[in-house]
Amino acid sequence: MAEQKATNVTWHEHKVSKAERLQLKGHKGAVVWFTGLSACGKSTIANALDHKLHLAGKHSVVLDGDNIRMGLNKNLGFSAEDRAENIRRIGEVSKLFAQSGTIAITAFISPYRADRDAVRALLGEGEFIEVYVNASVETCEARDPKGLYKKARAGEIKNFTGISDPYEAPEKAELVLDANTKGIEELTNEVLAYLESKGVLKA
Amino acid sequence: MAEQKATNVTWHEHKVSKAERLQLKGHKGAVVWFTGLSACGKSTIANALDHKLHLAGKHSVVLDGDNIRMGLNKNLGFSAEDRAENIRRIGEVSKLFAQSGTIAITAFISPYRADRDAVRALLGEGEFIEVYVNASVETCEARDPKGLYKKARAGEIKNFTGISDPYEAPEKAELVLDANTKGIEELTNEVLAYLESKGVLKA
Repeated sequence: MAEQKATNVTWHEHKVSKAERLQLKGHKGAVVWFTGLSACGKSTIANALDHKLHLAGKHSVVLDGDNIRMGLNKNLGFSAEDRAENIRRIGEVSKLFAQSGTIAITAFISPYRADRDAVRALLGEGEFIEVYVNASVETCEARDPKGLYKKARAGEIKNFTGISDPYEAPEKAELVLDANTKGIEELTNEVLAYLESKGVLKA
Repeated sequence: MAEQKATNVTWHEHKVSKAERLQLKGHKGAVVWFTGLSACGKSTIANALDHKLHLAGKHSVVLDGDNIRMGLNKNLGFSAEDRAENIRRIGEVSKLFAQSGTIAITAFISPYRADRDAVRALLGEGEFIEVYVNASVETCEARDPKGLYKKARAGEIKNFTGISDPYEAPEKAELVLDANTKGIEELTNEVLAYLESKGVLKA
């Protein structure tokens, strides 16, 4: 992971405590980290979850792959090193949101176990909720809404996860969603039920 | 600024609109961008503002120099290039907070005009509020709470803004605070009054 470059920096305690922020929001901060192959449904479930949380008066935010790659991480590509830095930055940003009492919902392929575990290590007990959206390459390739698998098979996209780059499935995800057989609504409700059962949705 | 590296990315519209997010928060999202020399009072005013906003039930967050340099930007130093990337990333993160309906309060020296203007360009009309905390090098050096000016004068810190690196004061800041003569409480109230006058504190 990234090395600490700046010296002469000291951690500032903020005047408003995390507990006070959660009190204002009415629920806990957390990071719901979706991981899975391209086209497995991560972004769709993330947005559906965000929508349901919003309707319930919860403060959430969605960070998803392409949007972040057009903003914060526009200077990163898809090499293993850039993918690691991509996930590291997103991890730090989700942490900032979680500290502010927001439920940060991330939807990134995040194919490497070590990168995801590094994000987990940034967060407190119970704050990092890894959700594996489990869909086979066959399922995803059959959907292929952006035609990316087709391009990857044709060799037009290099380092494509599941085709020419590995995907390391989580071994201890908080939640595994069966996206081969279940629909968006059902899967979204499974995540919501998990958050409720863990007390995330109350302060 | 950073070049777009990833191709094959498309912008996703989120299911929850920005307007709906502001409605839930009860006020607008914005970036209150403090700029000024080291030890001019940026972080102290930022935290005091955050505290007052919190007490008033507003959703705010503080992003400050050292904390970000120990997290998101730990792989950046103080060269002109690294400073630009530091500010670029912080700009993108504040934008994410503003879009979520949060008042992002940033406290970074952010010495270069071009870098600050690039952040302004990321945000919508009225969303970027540049606050110049105007204190002379003499004032700041007399305070020097972390002994950094002393180290910079001794040549132990290179590229130190105001000593061995330039500070480009804002030409069109939304607000200029006179930190040579006024105290934290008074300056914080000036910012609060500005936010109120511009309608930021209501949805």
